[in-house]
Amino acid sequence: DEIDERLIRKGLKTQNSIWGNQSSILVGDYLLSRCIEIMDDDGDLEILKLLSSTSAKIAQGEVLQLQHKGEADLLEETYLKIINLKTASLFAASTRTGACLAGSNEKEKDALESYGKNLGLAFQIADDALDYYGKDKFFGKEIGKDFFEGKVTLPLIIVFQKGNEEERSFLSQILKKEKRNEDDFSEILSLIYKYKAVEASLKRAEYFVSVSHDSLGIFPDNEEKKILQNLTSFSLNRSF
Amino acid sequence: DEIDERLIRKGLKTQNSIWGNQSSILVGDYLLSRCIEIMDDDGDLEILKLLSSTSAKIAQGEVLQLQHKGEADLLEETYLKIINLKTASLFAASTRTGACLAGSNEKEKDALESYGKNLGLAFQIADDALDYYGKDKFFGKEIGKDFFEGKVTLPLIIVFQKGNEEERSFLSQILKKEKRNEDDFSEILSLIYKYKAVEASLKRAEYFVSVSHDSLGIFPDNEEKKILQNLTSFSLNRSF
Repeated sequence: DEIDERLIRKGLKTQNSIWGNQSSILVGDYLLSRCIEIMDDDGDLEILKLLSSTSAKIAQGEVLQLQHKGEADLLEETYLKIINLKTASLFAASTRTGACLAGSNEKEKDALESYGKNLGLAFQIADDALDYYGKDKFFGKEIGKDFFEGKVTLPLIIVFQKGNEEERSFLSQILKKEKRNEDDFSEILSLIYKYKAVEASLKRAEYFVSVSHDSLGIFPDNEEKKILQNLTSFSLNRSF
Repeated sequence: DEIDERLIRKGLKTQNSIWGNQSSILVGDYLLSRCIEIMDDDGDLEILKLLSSTSAKIAQGEVLQLQHKGEADLLEETYLKIINLKTASLFAASTRTGACLAGSNEKEKDALESYGKNLGLAFQIADDALDYYGKDKFFGKEIGKDFFEGKVTLPLIIVFQKGNEEERSFLSQILKKEKRNEDDFSEILSLIYKYKAVEASLKRAEYFVSVSHDSLGIFPDNEEKKILQNLTSFSLNRSF
């Protein structure tokens, strides 16, 4: 939230909006250290390694995103790399950790990791698409936040891919500006509608939903499997 | 063709079926050396590096595929890794080489590499699906070749993902056998039909077709762009 300078997240006030940045960062550092301490007590080396490498990946993803800020011609491949690092790696580590704790074999660990990774990709693509679509009161998220920050996500990438030369150069100019205003956002929204960029984004996410869902195929059918599989399509239909 | 022990490829007799394995391998080695010699003459270091690393990737992909031979519960993620290495890397190198020779900038090189990579993935998934569907005379390919070799590709992975416990163990047993016969293949084909595994595979390929198509979005609209973009959906509809 500090990095994104968010005041609201999932409909609630963010910590930094209440206590300020300094305290929030320090409390964050404390919580991170406490987490590592708790994991050390547990003493599972595999999980410790997994979570520290994941933590590094998330930071890498955030840095990569910063590096490409305001880049209208951001490649979809680069965007996928960013969300793989900053989001999907955390989902993958969480689901793999479950498999580790349950004493699963390598294949099952890999399958659960793949489940989490693809769920994370679908989730982040949907989340980014909703920034150009969702309604405040439903999503608890300020619409257009990514755009105002100059953060290029899939809907803008799709507009750039499908737009004509004029629209492409308009998008480049608007993203180069120091600050963007509500009028800029309206213009962009009309391009998003014109090229059905939200729908196209969700279509991409559907691929990851399928892969995530089907990656659990190697497990015997049971209630838990069904719950996890239902969660995959929920990541597209959620309203927060 | 030697590795696959193929007698026919794309409707024509393979070299090894005419001249035997030894000569074919030696001639292959000669051709590879000559290629490198010709590239050395040209003296573009970037392309040389790209093609030698690609060559290594293709070999890695083939080895990975051999390692997982007969593995009924092969993960889709592993399959994607294999086809990324053995097929998509070559497509990606080819299209990136074009960008290098044309003196394109880094972004354009990356875009063309992404075009090739995703086209290669779509092509290979379609190719593997057609092994359970295509008609000899159209495809110039012996149907079921992958299955008889114990090579697990996306259609079998999907059958394993969607099948019930009984069907999963049937698939495991049949792939563990030293050799599979026509009756085994018929049984498998009926499962492929039951779970629409060819259609599901082509659906996955469609995602890569879209990404490949749209990755050229950063280039100005022209005839060449249109040809390359049309090629992407052709990779699913081709009949050879």
